[in-house]
Amino acid sequence: MTRDTLRIDLERLLGRIRRLGEVGALAGGGVCRLALGPEDQAARDLVVGWMTALGLDVTIDGIGNILAVRAGRRAGPTVMSGSHIDTVATGGIYDGNLGVLAGLEVVETLNDAGLETEYPLAVAVFTNEEGARFAPDMMGSLVFAGGFDLEAALATVGIDGESVGDCLERIGYRGEVPCGAMEVRAFVELHVEQGPVLEAEGVTIGAVEKVQGISWTEVTISGVSNHAGTTPMALRQDAGHAAAVLACEVRHIVVEIGGDQVGTVGVITLEPNLINVIAKRAVVTVDLRNTDEARLQAAERRLDDVLSGLRGQGFGVETRRLARFEPVDFDPDMVAAVETAAHRLGHSVKRMPSGAGHDAQMLTRVCPAGMIFVPSRDGISHNVKEYTEPEDIGAGANVLLQVLLDLAGVTA
Amino acid sequence: MTRDTLRIDLERLLGRIRRLGEVGALAGGGVCRLALGPEDQAARDLVVGWMTALGLDVTIDGIGNILAVRAGRRAGPTVMSGSHIDTVATGGIYDGNLGVLAGLEVVETLNDAGLETEYPLAVAVFTNEEGARFAPDMMGSLVFAGGFDLEAALATVGIDGESVGDCLERIGYRGEVPCGAMEVRAFVELHVEQGPVLEAEGVTIGAVEKVQGISWTEVTISGVSNHAGTTPMALRQDAGHAAAVLACEVRHIVVEIGGDQVGTVGVITLEPNLINVIAKRAVVTVDLRNTDEARLQAAERRLDDVLSGLRGQGFGVETRRLARFEPVDFDPDMVAAVETAAHRLGHSVKRMPSGAGHDAQMLTRVCPAGMIFVPSRDGISHNVKEYTEPEDIGAGANVLLQVLLDLAGVTA
Repeated sequence: MTRDTLRIDLERLLGRIRRLGEVGALAGGGVCRLALGPEDQAARDLVVGWMTALGLDVTIDGIGNILAVRAGRRAGPTVMSGSHIDTVATGGIYDGNLGVLAGLEVVETLNDAGLETEYPLAVAVFTNEEGARFAPDMMGSLVFAGGFDLEAALATVGIDGESVGDCLERIGYRGEVPCGAMEVRAFVELHVEQGPVLEAEGVTIGAVEKVQGISWTEVTISGVSNHAGTTPMALRQDAGHAAAVLACEVRHIVVEIGGDQVGTVGVITLEPNLINVIAKRAVVTVDLRNTDEARLQAAERRLDDVLSGLRGQGFGVETRRLARFEPVDFDPDMVAAVETAAHRLGHSVKRMPSGAGHDAQMLTRVCPAGMIFVPSRDGISHNVKEYTEPEDIGAGANVLLQVLLDLAGVTA
Repeated sequence: MTRDTLRIDLERLLGRIRRLGEVGALAGGGVCRLALGPEDQAARDLVVGWMTALGLDVTIDGIGNILAVRAGRRAGPTVMSGSHIDTVATGGIYDGNLGVLAGLEVVETLNDAGLETEYPLAVAVFTNEEGARFAPDMMGSLVFAGGFDLEAALATVGIDGESVGDCLERIGYRGEVPCGAMEVRAFVELHVEQGPVLEAEGVTIGAVEKVQGISWTEVTISGVSNHAGTTPMALRQDAGHAAAVLACEVRHIVVEIGGDQVGTVGVITLEPNLINVIAKRAVVTVDLRNTDEARLQAAERRLDDVLSGLRGQGFGVETRRLARFEPVDFDPDMVAAVETAAHRLGHSVKRMPSGAGHDAQMLTRVCPAGMIFVPSRDGISHNVKEYTEPEDIGAGANVLLQVLLDLAGVTA
């Protein structure tokens, strides 16, 4: 067997995906494994058991990241793969999990083939990527990459009032290893696209070039609550109507900027939200994303103009910045490595941006990093209906295998 | 003292308003007396006590309406005044209560003056005008006027699962008198405007000509939930954006029709209502009102066109008709009587429509009916901040006195 003909065992990988998907399984399909809860603990224990069985050297760092290393011929910086196993409240079984389990599958494939790499390989499980319980998301990889202070991260209080530190202690994953102590030569993450582009274009592999910058703003509009029947239109200060205007304007801004620009008003909450009462308050969230920082800033300026217009009409308008990440470019050599490996295996491949945030973008702070996307059926993710075809999972895992061998060095 | 110089005792009336406002009082002001609950029972007992003390003949009909009669020189149909004493969950102390207590104040004023009317006078307290616990609203007056079957009304189940009949039994107000058995010569109701028009124009008395027709539609829009970052704009089916477009279109329709047309989107509820998820479902309510039935129907047709447009874009759109009342015209002689009485007392008066529904509109089914409005500060009602100036209450109650004397006939 040569290195180019080496293949992962798809059934074994699918079996681990299904088995991990049973932890925190929801009655109607999908999973709920909020970060650092009992289901996350059970999932971690399961994965650590697999890691140990594969002969990996497992350590836990201060923020609970699980780092499993397969020694190479030389010591020194590792070639790392991985992702996360926490999920949103109604998540699928592929998001994150695929990247971790494909990393383990690569290890088992190498073990079975008796192949040793030049440099060590590592598989990482990063803590709290989703941010569904504790903000910010991508917390574990951000702390690992030195972008967020460990003590501040541990003190973060979640939606249920508990802190990250207390939860890590309770589930037994507050590790001793200093965060970021492991040197990384390169990082590559396999992930489901979570969008519809690959499926729509009939392409199997995405070579991810960049991650969109994200701008999240919460807008609170204050008007005057009044009777829907007795208040003439000219005397209204209808916060609900202002919210609708804002949502329509966000769409106008996005369409006019065009290109990669996307924008979403996912939250509209009116108060009192009654059929016959003019709303006195509206909370609206605006999610703007672009791979180009200048255009993202242009979208933000136009949003500010819309909000100024509402203020000019007498509405109270307050904003809260909920998130702001600049676009991240992956290393061109990593993108090329993914593309080359896909071509070598005969898969169609497309260079593309990621619309979602991923642990790999945090790793760009400390090493060359890249990502491999495989198609998501109907583009659906963060949803129990999330699904990726087995053949696409196999294709993605084999590309991961090839890229890791390219990076870690092997002669077979 | 002549009939024209007879005046009500404002302090006595304000005292009863304050005393009744203590029943079900909320900590921060205002009252909560949902229909047929313990607070409504206590309020009824208090008012019936006052009625009895004034020498009125009090009867309760099958739907719990309280009917208190002051005999005239002749028997036969009564000249009736009244309103309701139930409130919304966070109501004011004037809405409804003013009409009932001003009726009692008129009675006491006549008692004190030793005046007998030609025809009997009646003061009515109608059951469940607000509809906050049991739908439909204006239930007691609707049953009284023969527009709603008593048995069906008694079987109505409220928001807490209890029926009107069971609640009437429990609070002791399931009366023996057949609904509508009392013949009514004419009906006039004093009420706070609940809108800003009188205050804005500096007018003391509104002579209500009509009640707006009401069209309530609940629209449920189904789209496709997806990731806000990874889904290109062209591939979205964003129910939240469709809801915003609908709300903006409702405003366009209303502005273009103009005149008395008003329209409100008071409810926008997105699902899942998360910042980074394209909404899969939106529930939007559309409240359209006009005093002109043809124009109201035109607004409804244009709303249908907007909904058809959304269906044409691939959205699922389902509608539910939550309420539909045609506009109601009050008797021109009654409007003139209010206007004349206001002029006679030196008050500014304005003919105007009512944007809200009132018991008086149900009485138009059985007799000439009319209404007297007094200003609401800032147009606020259905709100603990509801307020009407004492001098305006006095003006309204004195106009009521004059109109009732005109209708019932008195020589003094």
